[in-house]
Amino acid sequence: MSKAITSRSEDYSQWYNDLVIKGGLADYSAVRGCMVIKPYGFTLWENMRDALDKMFKDTGHTNAYFPLFVPKSLFEAEEKNAEGFAKECAVVTHYRLKSDPDKKGALMVDPEAKLEEELVVRPTSEAIIWNTYKNWIQSYRDLPILINQWANVVRWEMRTRLFLRTAEFLWQEGHTAHATKEEAIAETRQMLDVYADFVENWMALPVVKGVKSENERFAGAEDTYCIEALMQDGKALQAGTSHFLGQNFAKAFDVKFSDKENKLDYVWATSWGVSTRLIGALVMAHSDDKGLIMPPRIAPLQVVIVPIYKGEESKPVIDGKAAELVKAFKAAGIRVKFDDNDNNRPGWKFAEYELKGVPVRIAMGARDIENGTVELARRDTGEKSVVSIDGITEHVNQLLLDIQQAIYDKALQFRNEHITKVDTWEEFQEVLKNKTGFVSAHWDGTGETEQKIKELTKATIRCIPLDSTEEEGKCIFSGKPSKQRVLFAQAY
Amino acid sequence: MSKAITSRSEDYSQWYNDLVIKGGLADYSAVRGCMVIKPYGFTLWENMRDALDKMFKDTGHTNAYFPLFVPKSLFEAEEKNAEGFAKECAVVTHYRLKSDPDKKGALMVDPEAKLEEELVVRPTSEAIIWNTYKNWIQSYRDLPILINQWANVVRWEMRTRLFLRTAEFLWQEGHTAHATKEEAIAETRQMLDVYADFVENWMALPVVKGVKSENERFAGAEDTYCIEALMQDGKALQAGTSHFLGQNFAKAFDVKFSDKENKLDYVWATSWGVSTRLIGALVMAHSDDKGLIMPPRIAPLQVVIVPIYKGEESKPVIDGKAAELVKAFKAAGIRVKFDDNDNNRPGWKFAEYELKGVPVRIAMGARDIENGTVELARRDTGEKSVVSIDGITEHVNQLLLDIQQAIYDKALQFRNEHITKVDTWEEFQEVLKNKTGFVSAHWDGTGETEQKIKELTKATIRCIPLDSTEEEGKCIFSGKPSKQRVLFAQAY
Repeated sequence: MSKAITSRSEDYSQWYNDLVIKGGLADYSAVRGCMVIKPYGFTLWENMRDALDKMFKDTGHTNAYFPLFVPKSLFEAEEKNAEGFAKECAVVTHYRLKSDPDKKGALMVDPEAKLEEELVVRPTSEAIIWNTYKNWIQSYRDLPILINQWANVVRWEMRTRLFLRTAEFLWQEGHTAHATKEEAIAETRQMLDVYADFVENWMALPVVKGVKSENERFAGAEDTYCIEALMQDGKALQAGTSHFLGQNFAKAFDVKFSDKENKLDYVWATSWGVSTRLIGALVMAHSDDKGLIMPPRIAPLQVVIVPIYKGEESKPVIDGKAAELVKAFKAAGIRVKFDDNDNNRPGWKFAEYELKGVPVRIAMGARDIENGTVELARRDTGEKSVVSIDGITEHVNQLLLDIQQAIYDKALQFRNEHITKVDTWEEFQEVLKNKTGFVSAHWDGTGETEQKIKELTKATIRCIPLDSTEEEGKCIFSGKPSKQRVLFAQAY
Repeated sequence: MSKAITSRSEDYSQWYNDLVIKGGLADYSAVRGCMVIKPYGFTLWENMRDALDKMFKDTGHTNAYFPLFVPKSLFEAEEKNAEGFAKECAVVTHYRLKSDPDKKGALMVDPEAKLEEELVVRPTSEAIIWNTYKNWIQSYRDLPILINQWANVVRWEMRTRLFLRTAEFLWQEGHTAHATKEEAIAETRQMLDVYADFVENWMALPVVKGVKSENERFAGAEDTYCIEALMQDGKALQAGTSHFLGQNFAKAFDVKFSDKENKLDYVWATSWGVSTRLIGALVMAHSDDKGLIMPPRIAPLQVVIVPIYKGEESKPVIDGKAAELVKAFKAAGIRVKFDDNDNNRPGWKFAEYELKGVPVRIAMGARDIENGTVELARRDTGEKSVVSIDGITEHVNQLLLDIQQAIYDKALQFRNEHITKVDTWEEFQEVLKNKTGFVSAHWDGTGETEQKIKELTKATIRCIPLDSTEEEGKCIFSGKPSKQRVLFAQAY
């Protein structure tokens, strides 16, 4: 067991790092705060990306690509957005290196190759995109513009964690332009629903849909909608955001259109994004002390077949039958691997694929084949069963669906058990300290109260849930009147 | 005709820019040398990427992702590679902006946020990747590593052209690690074949496979293999390269492995890449004075249906039949659009889809439907035909195949007519000046001669073709003995 995993109870944070690194998802790099996404992790990201991409296209969006760099003068045009990101910008100042005269073989920045205007490595692309849309939009006939981009972005965070918070990360950012406020708001809500659909039905992770308080809003947005998920340590994680940007960027970049009556008005905007952070959420929400647990719909590998050779003569029999199974599984669209690597023993392989979270393991010996059966093991419950090889494809297909549902149900139950209604400040503190999770409480609606609560408890308002109903109450902190409960939690 | 295109004979270079911009592939951006890839151009890139990605996966490769930034000390580790790229590096020196005290609302680079070590924005990723592979490779059991990455890279070119040469571009870069020299060379050659297969069979563009002279080799490679294509103006374009890197990067980053006999040796490497430059090649190779010509296999749109409404009552009839056709085409895997936008007249639409290079146009009026026919027009030849609606899906599918073949055949004929064997310096100059294209000539094998020929004629050695046979001859420039002809051309 060279790949021992720290248990959750021992050190939750180390457990997470162990899963990411030993599970083969990512690795540290030589660049501060940047990570390497390894093949297994990247295949997971590809599966997530492909599913989302199809959903974006099915809702009428197309992909495009905008420059990595934002000239400083454009970056600062939308003041709130600039202020929000200025403190974490990587800045390109020079465009050439030259030999260092003081150090043989070394290079130095060429002081003569200083850029006239510095370039910000995009932390988000509203500025460069709205500066471009300006040239594309004259009339209502040019609207709506429904564009998404898959890209890398850089935010120079001081404390980084693999996937959850890295200086560079991969994401998609949708940027749409509309003729009316109503249409832009409908788009914002539609994409929130797309995200919720994806995270719940593909990642098997239940979310709360809501809207952010002003303090937590995206810099430059009129309203930020979000989906919030709960991790096993009771902390919340923002899994995606969809922003109604009003006319802020249109005004900053002077993007106007003439409507059907030939009247000029500023264009309405939205932006929305999810990132490789979702992989961090996936790891923390479902995994256990043996390793990762991958929901079948996005698992890089859904089934692994491990041969149990006993004696030379069993090999051709097992390999032959395994080849048949692999062919049948692939034809049924199941992602399968036959691991006949003879450097490792079956026990080692069992542990390895548990660590990697492969949903279904099939063990197959010569005796099994004689009996026309194989042994199936579910990663999520550990349950084993002996199954007939006849009809195994249908059986495994159904099992994958069952596992997907079971993982979701488990996460949902945990989440529902961890939404606690409280009505007093004592209860509020008590729940955050011991039970953890979401706390549903009344709040007076002010940023000051929100800030004080954060200082005292580290809990922030995760969102004002979209499905919450009006209810008379008193702010748990200030005692002032409130009409609605909001969800607090400590968060990633 | 607001979208008039400059003709090739009038101004080839402007013709190219017109096609790219007015054809909706790309646009200039506010960042010097960087472009915006518009939805139509990006869909083309997605089609190319997906086809290549499948080929990479079918040959055993997986994708991963490595950091955008390379610390200067890593960048300079492989000396030749560093020297080759140092002059065109965008360099990040700071990680924060702050308010400019002298200018309200403006930001400035925060001098207190200077990085201890500068970060180079990757112009290529050998350095960061081999620094990572060092941690992944101990034994022959860890080999081969067969990884590809789809990424953006930055090379600060002084003269840029849309797609052909931009400061930032999108590409894929494969980076493989092997236990033996033979295996690494076989990989280099395999990927060259993959590229040739893709460019010829998907992009309909014939290529010459060859190896570069030392002068034209990738910085840090032992051998650079390439595919070279010919554009309509008789200039060559390097469409893809595959490098055998020997042990250069393994030595620079100290990457050793123990073989089966427990002996330590440096790892053998390859890298290979194609980029969005291929889109430039596609545009220049096939298009005409009416606009783009897209090979059907990668065309964003393969068929467009344009309704010819005459009177209000024809609309429901045409729209109903068009919806049937769209459904049938989509079911057959054909990328189709029904353009019923009533802001534009049919003539405008015809010109627009010719400009965009959609392979097949279907025009459909009420009379046609009565007759059970539609009018088909081929973009490549302009040929029109009246075709029965019965069996149209099969007909169009076959037509798309025919068009793909016809575009390839045309380019092949042009290319073959533009490979000229010459044996004297006069002929050599004469062909380059008037006929253009590839010139097949003897060369004495020295870098000096190559350099002088370049200075005098702007022609470079594009490659030493892999299929060329040994043949006694004399260098066209120096008269020294030569055993093989090489291909010269002026190039993009």
